[in-house]
Amino acid sequence: MAKAPRSLPPSVQRLIDAFAALPGIGPKSASRLAYYLLRSPAEQSMVLSEALRELKLRTRLCSVCFNITEDDPCEICADESRNTALICVVEEPLDVTALERARAFYGRYHVLHGVISPMNGVGPDDLKVNELLSRVSSGGVTEVILATNPTLEGENTAAYLQRKLMQSWPTGLSVSRLARGLPVGGDLEYADEVTLSRALEGRQKMT
Amino acid sequence: MAKAPRSLPPSVQRLIDAFAALPGIGPKSASRLAYYLLRSPAEQSMVLSEALRELKLRTRLCSVCFNITEDDPCEICADESRNTALICVVEEPLDVTALERARAFYGRYHVLHGVISPMNGVGPDDLKVNELLSRVSSGGVTEVILATNPTLEGENTAAYLQRKLMQSWPTGLSVSRLARGLPVGGDLEYADEVTLSRALEGRQKMT
Repeated sequence: MAKAPRSLPPSVQRLIDAFAALPGIGPKSASRLAYYLLRSPAEQSMVLSEALRELKLRTRLCSVCFNITEDDPCEICADESRNTALICVVEEPLDVTALERARAFYGRYHVLHGVISPMNGVGPDDLKVNELLSRVSSGGVTEVILATNPTLEGENTAAYLQRKLMQSWPTGLSVSRLARGLPVGGDLEYADEVTLSRALEGRQKMT
Repeated sequence: MAKAPRSLPPSVQRLIDAFAALPGIGPKSASRLAYYLLRSPAEQSMVLSEALRELKLRTRLCSVCFNITEDDPCEICADESRNTALICVVEEPLDVTALERARAFYGRYHVLHGVISPMNGVGPDDLKVNELLSRVSSGGVTEVILATNPTLEGENTAAYLQRKLMQSWPTGLSVSRLARGLPVGGDLEYADEVTLSRALEGRQKMT
C-alpha cells in the first residue's frame, strides 16, 4: 500500500522550518522561498545569511532612548540640534522610523519595547517604564507625548504612564497623546464608529 | 525646515533589503521581519542564517531526474522498488513533493526546471528537455506522464514534449497527461468555464 511520502533533503527542510518560524510566513510560503533561493544565484542566500548573522552582532539598544542602534547613544539622541525638553514615547523601534518619516517631530524618543498587557503577562516592569521615569526626573523635560498605538493596550499603557508621570510631577510637566481622528485621505463612509466618535470629540475650530 | 528622515542602522537596513528581495515580501513585511528578529533570541537569526548558508553548499541536482537532492542519485531514483518504466515529468521540485504527498505514483520523476515561455525568453534548451529525451532513448521506459501545470505555458510545454516524444518513438511509448476536471471538494457553482468544459469532455462512465 501507500508508502510514507518522500522527505525533502534535510538542508531544504531546515530552511523551510526556519522561514516558517517567522511571523506571517506559513509552511507554503516557506517552501516557495526555499525553492526560490535554490533557483537563484548562491550570492542571494549568502547576502541574507550574512545580514542575519550581523544583525545581532552589530546592533544594541541606545542607553538613552532604547531605540535600536549601532552606536550608543543613537544618532537621534546624539543630535544636539534636537529639542531635549520633548520626549515622544513609542511602543516599538518601527514607530520611531514612522514618526521620523513624517518629519514633524524634533524632540527625542523613548522606546518602551511593548505595551502593558496583563493577558500576555506583560507588566510595567517588563517595559522601559522605570527608565522613562528616571529620564524625566533627571530634569529638563517639559513635555511627554504618549504615542502608543490607538489600541486597547496602547491606550491602557498611555493611561498608566500619564498617571505615573502626573503623580511625580503634578505641575510643570505636560503630558499629551497623539490626536485620534479620520486618517488623511480616508473615506468618512468607511470609518469605524469609534474613530468617527473620536474625530467628533476632537473636532477643531476652523479660524 | 524638515530634515531628511533618520536612516535605520545599516545592519538593520541591509537585512530589510535582503528580505524585501525575496518574492512575496514587500518593504513593510521586510521591516517587520527584521524587527521581529531583533526582539527574538539571537539563536533564531543564527538558525536561519546557517540554514541559508548550508542550502547551496549541501544541495545539488540529481543527475538522473534533476530533482533537488543532497545525495546523487536522489532517494527516489535510488529506490529500486519504484517502477523505472514510468517517468512523470514536472516543472519544479515542489511538484515532486506534491505528487509524493498524494502517494499515488510509484514511478520516477523528471524535473524540467521551468516551462517553455517565449515571452520570458525560455526555450526547450533552457530546460531539462534533452536530458528527458536521452533518458527515454536509453530504453526501458514505457510511459511518460506529462504533469506540467494546467496553465497556458504548461499545456504548450506538454504539447511540445508530446510531439518530440512521438517523433522519436511513434510506437511503444505511451505519453499521457494528468486529468483535468473539478477539484475534489470543490463546488461546481464556482468552477470556471474552462475547468467545467474539461470536466465534461473527460467525463467518466460509472460502472
